[in-house]
Amino acid sequence: MITSTSNPRVKAARKLSSRKERYASGQLLVEGVRLLSDAWQSGVTPHIVFFEPETVAHNENAAALLHLLEAAGLACLACSPAVFATLTGTVTPQGVAAIIPLPSQPLPHSSTLILILDQLRDPGNAGTLLRSGEAAGVDLVIFGPNTVDPFNDKVVRAGMGAHFRLPLRTAATWAEVASLLPPDLPLYLADAHGQMEYDQVDWRQPSGLVVGGEAAGASVEARRHATTVAIPMRGAVESLNAGTAGSIILFEAARQRRQNR
Amino acid sequence: MITSTSNPRVKAARKLSSRKERYASGQLLVEGVRLLSDAWQSGVTPHIVFFEPETVAHNENAAALLHLLEAAGLACLACSPAVFATLTGTVTPQGVAAIIPLPSQPLPHSSTLILILDQLRDPGNAGTLLRSGEAAGVDLVIFGPNTVDPFNDKVVRAGMGAHFRLPLRTAATWAEVASLLPPDLPLYLADAHGQMEYDQVDWRQPSGLVVGGEAAGASVEARRHATTVAIPMRGAVESLNAGTAGSIILFEAARQRRQNR
Repeated sequence: MITSTSNPRVKAARKLSSRKERYASGQLLVEGVRLLSDAWQSGVTPHIVFFEPETVAHNENAAALLHLLEAAGLACLACSPAVFATLTGTVTPQGVAAIIPLPSQPLPHSSTLILILDQLRDPGNAGTLLRSGEAAGVDLVIFGPNTVDPFNDKVVRAGMGAHFRLPLRTAATWAEVASLLPPDLPLYLADAHGQMEYDQVDWRQPSGLVVGGEAAGASVEARRHATTVAIPMRGAVESLNAGTAGSIILFEAARQRRQNR
Repeated sequence: MITSTSNPRVKAARKLSSRKERYASGQLLVEGVRLLSDAWQSGVTPHIVFFEPETVAHNENAAALLHLLEAAGLACLACSPAVFATLTGTVTPQGVAAIIPLPSQPLPHSSTLILILDQLRDPGNAGTLLRSGEAAGVDLVIFGPNTVDPFNDKVVRAGMGAHFRLPLRTAATWAEVASLLPPDLPLYLADAHGQMEYDQVDWRQPSGLVVGGEAAGASVEARRHATTVAIPMRGAVESLNAGTAGSIILFEAARQRRQNR
């Protein structure tokens, strides 16, 4: 039982809350039964598992998962409640956490629906868009300039496992974004004052959707690359939440593809 | 300048964080430049305005709003930073808050799109649905059984002013919900395992959408009243966020009504 918060493995796990450390080590700390199960089911093998025996004993799902991981021969380290608490960002930790290799799904051979986040800093919105994106059939998500890190713990939690199933890439500049896109892919940018109504776009064609941040919107560069599309709104609403607006457009694309219009 | 946190008017304002107190007094405390401006523009006259001079002096919009409210002859009370902090639930208060009459828009003569929340406890999701609902053309929102209070401060913040423009009603039972609905209104319940695809519904007809909570889902009673509709999903996603799923369906209704299919 690890009882010291300065245990080297616990310290190493804690450091993974830093973006720099995640990329330097190629590792991510994930917590919670649901996320860890999603990772495991997607073929991810944890490097180290941490657990807090008391909490696990009171949570059937946590106990079953831990049993599975132990049976697979993984190093599972028991921690005191105080030590385990230093690993988690949640208010009610579920007693299991693990260091896993940083998810890295291969790029699809051909992409037909790409989601690009531009200056989107809110982790909840980014996670919502990953969750909606996977469900709508997005085959690549690019985290563009000035966007929250895809492996920020709040993004991972809100993504509900999409991180382990969707190819994600980061791009620090629009030149980098462009290098990840098929040539001549039409891009559409969600914008409350857009030129075109979002449901007038032919989403059955391969296409990319750019979603900007809620406060600052998308960058000038994003605007240069994309046709702006608006969701027509009633009432006195100025704009929708970025995660909501992006999800509405992604599911319009899914609807058109399913119904072939 | 109010410098004591036990000033009776400050105490009365703080009490409005309690649901019971809001309904007993018929009053609501709102904070922030945007919300207070929205309330004012919707014809709401605050009973008392509180402000923190230092913060207001550094915020042009706050200063302009306060000027407007003072010019309208409203009681505007300066508070010390420590006193003002006890009034606000936000991390970065904007220096203005006000006690306003509890919003109460009249019921529409005829409703064509009604949103019903059932066992929806998350304030962020409820607020998102109000914001999306207004933009999609919803004309009545019913906060049904076991649902967060519409005037909870987080719901009000996430609603982005919809509270001052949309008719909202609460209903403690499904009998009460039914009493607020036109007779024979077809009801649809968002459900990941629904019987019907959400875009197969003819939303051009007057209809009601029921959205349940993310954890527990909708109640047995809600299920008895409504046809379940699903948003078809790709990947391994089990469900969408309740606010997102509801918004996607509401905007499908708006799309059908705009395009007449």
